[in-house]
Amino acid sequence: MTSFDYSARMDRARREMTDRGVDVLLASLGSDLPYLTGYQAMPLERLTMAVVPREGEPVLVVPELEASRVDPVPGVFSIKPWTETEDVIAIVAALVGASRIAMIGDHTWAVFLLALQAALPDTEFRSARPLTEALRLVKEPAEIELLRKAGASADVVAGLLAVHTFEGKTESQLSREVAALLEANGTDVAGFAIVASGPNGASPHHEPGDRVIGAGDAVVIDFGGTVAGYSSDTTRMFHVGEPSAKYLEVHEVVRAAQEAGVAAARPGVTAESVDRATRAVIEDAGYGEFFIHRTGHGIGLDGHEDPYIVAGNSQILQPGMAFSIEPGIYLPGEFGVRIEDIVVCTSDSVERMNQSPRQVAIVK
Amino acid sequence: MTSFDYSARMDRARREMTDRGVDVLLASLGSDLPYLTGYQAMPLERLTMAVVPREGEPVLVVPELEASRVDPVPGVFSIKPWTETEDVIAIVAALVGASRIAMIGDHTWAVFLLALQAALPDTEFRSARPLTEALRLVKEPAEIELLRKAGASADVVAGLLAVHTFEGKTESQLSREVAALLEANGTDVAGFAIVASGPNGASPHHEPGDRVIGAGDAVVIDFGGTVAGYSSDTTRMFHVGEPSAKYLEVHEVVRAAQEAGVAAARPGVTAESVDRATRAVIEDAGYGEFFIHRTGHGIGLDGHEDPYIVAGNSQILQPGMAFSIEPGIYLPGEFGVRIEDIVVCTSDSVERMNQSPRQVAIVK
Repeated sequence: MTSFDYSARMDRARREMTDRGVDVLLASLGSDLPYLTGYQAMPLERLTMAVVPREGEPVLVVPELEASRVDPVPGVFSIKPWTETEDVIAIVAALVGASRIAMIGDHTWAVFLLALQAALPDTEFRSARPLTEALRLVKEPAEIELLRKAGASADVVAGLLAVHTFEGKTESQLSREVAALLEANGTDVAGFAIVASGPNGASPHHEPGDRVIGAGDAVVIDFGGTVAGYSSDTTRMFHVGEPSAKYLEVHEVVRAAQEAGVAAARPGVTAESVDRATRAVIEDAGYGEFFIHRTGHGIGLDGHEDPYIVAGNSQILQPGMAFSIEPGIYLPGEFGVRIEDIVVCTSDSVERMNQSPRQVAIVK
Repeated sequence: MTSFDYSARMDRARREMTDRGVDVLLASLGSDLPYLTGYQAMPLERLTMAVVPREGEPVLVVPELEASRVDPVPGVFSIKPWTETEDVIAIVAALVGASRIAMIGDHTWAVFLLALQAALPDTEFRSARPLTEALRLVKEPAEIELLRKAGASADVVAGLLAVHTFEGKTESQLSREVAALLEANGTDVAGFAIVASGPNGASPHHEPGDRVIGAGDAVVIDFGGTVAGYSSDTTRMFHVGEPSAKYLEVHEVVRAAQEAGVAAARPGVTAESVDRATRAVIEDAGYGEFFIHRTGHGIGLDGHEDPYIVAGNSQILQPGMAFSIEPGIYLPGEFGVRIEDIVVCTSDSVERMNQSPRQVAIVK
């Protein structure tokens, strides 16, 4: 397990709180809590919540039966276990005390926010996103190294898939095989493996199902997992037997769009300019209406986080920002094509975390 | 895929809304949305939310790139896809309109609730739990049949584990094997597989890790997955080689406590009385302080849902309620023992969804 300097991260959080006039930060589900403490809450009905005051010791309120999962970091945070018959909202409310402005982690369940709002009528609750984005947007070298490792594992799997048998398998069977390949090749936990074959490829977030992959199918595989909590996410295209001229034309448009996005991404430009770069290639080729999603999303402890590579996002890219570049063309009833790499901004361009070939792989 | 009568469920939801003076129900992440529509939202930053007014047509607001995943049910709900550059909060707010009282699903992300509260300052937001609990607490026969199938699949795996090799494997390796066994034996998606060996067994929610399982280890395996969305959840005990007299004594206390809980559970008694029944056996044996969690939780589309079998819950059990009975004893530094079945209330007692032997299985 890679260990980070949680004390330094907590100090940065406090400086951000001071700058923004925030009295207390509440972190529960999602990646803000592991970012600050190294501990990830279980997504269950028993509340786990770090209460981080601008001054004073942070306390992690945790169900007693999960307390032994936590390694408190001396000087960084202590823990307050609560038992099944205690009122955890009252415990958190007491720790929040007279705080006027509270920021709360975005993925916290609504039921807990509503209960805290009722218990603390004089406290104003705000989304923690502006603060946690400021903390997490620029990755530390050790974080980038984990993104690199996660990407390298995914690349190994892309290589294995290029010589894999597709025909006769269902999408869900192949999806399970992709997950197993990830975990056998350096990924700690396989997170997702979209396998979308033939016309299903036109649904960008297709749920792998019972469709049997056959000759002539284009197959979108979008997959990733985590290494020490940091995510990979790459999409490659496979084709059972020789593709049609139309497929090859569309694939080449997407490949060129993806290259254009990578070429456009560097420190000092806006996130939306990278979106414009990929979209221009696809629009110029006449497929603009079939590119129905943004170009990409940030990545780190969360699979999707800031910066989002989307029209309207004027965020200036900086060295250490990590995100996907993943244009696609989706032709309803026919097929879809998407090509995706994770990149990290360097001092003057980007480094790709994925190096596997971006041509279509012809498979059996 | 089992199909349910979503029209009837939506009608029941509306009757509950009328009875409670609720103008609109908002369902996003979690199981309320699939319960009402058959569609499960992706746990991502693009909001998916069903807006169910007390009168008028329900609308599922869904990201455009996920719209093709949805099968709208004619007469039950329509869909409103939103594109990457639209303001989804404004779209939902317009649908909520002048509603005075809104209920919102418990697992909705806080960031969306805060944004909706800001956009709709005259709307009072409440937790949807009382309403969705009323809908989902008593299972339909088709739901019970899926719980039965999920339980039977887990039982097959328990049987296979009793003749499985444990020694020399890490917990995480064995955990992956349990997941693979589930998916090879009738479970659609393996959800979790806690493998807690030796002293790690004393942590009820232990995260399987690098500890190598060796001779003399007691091993807690708590595992489950879903069949058509409905969960299994069972815990069985394994021991590498012959157990000590102390282990056998503790195991027998937990087994007797679990039997006492099953015997106590029936329509007309309170949820907490089942907790008292298991706890009394453990307390009488002198291990009360080492049973550090409630006796159980409801189960259905969510792995944990109402009714919770815990002190203070005076909910009266009724035919069709489904929940776990899972007492445990956790001896820090030594070992833990937990035995868990899912049961469903019948007209006069409970039916167990798990039939695999509750003795300790001696393994290699």
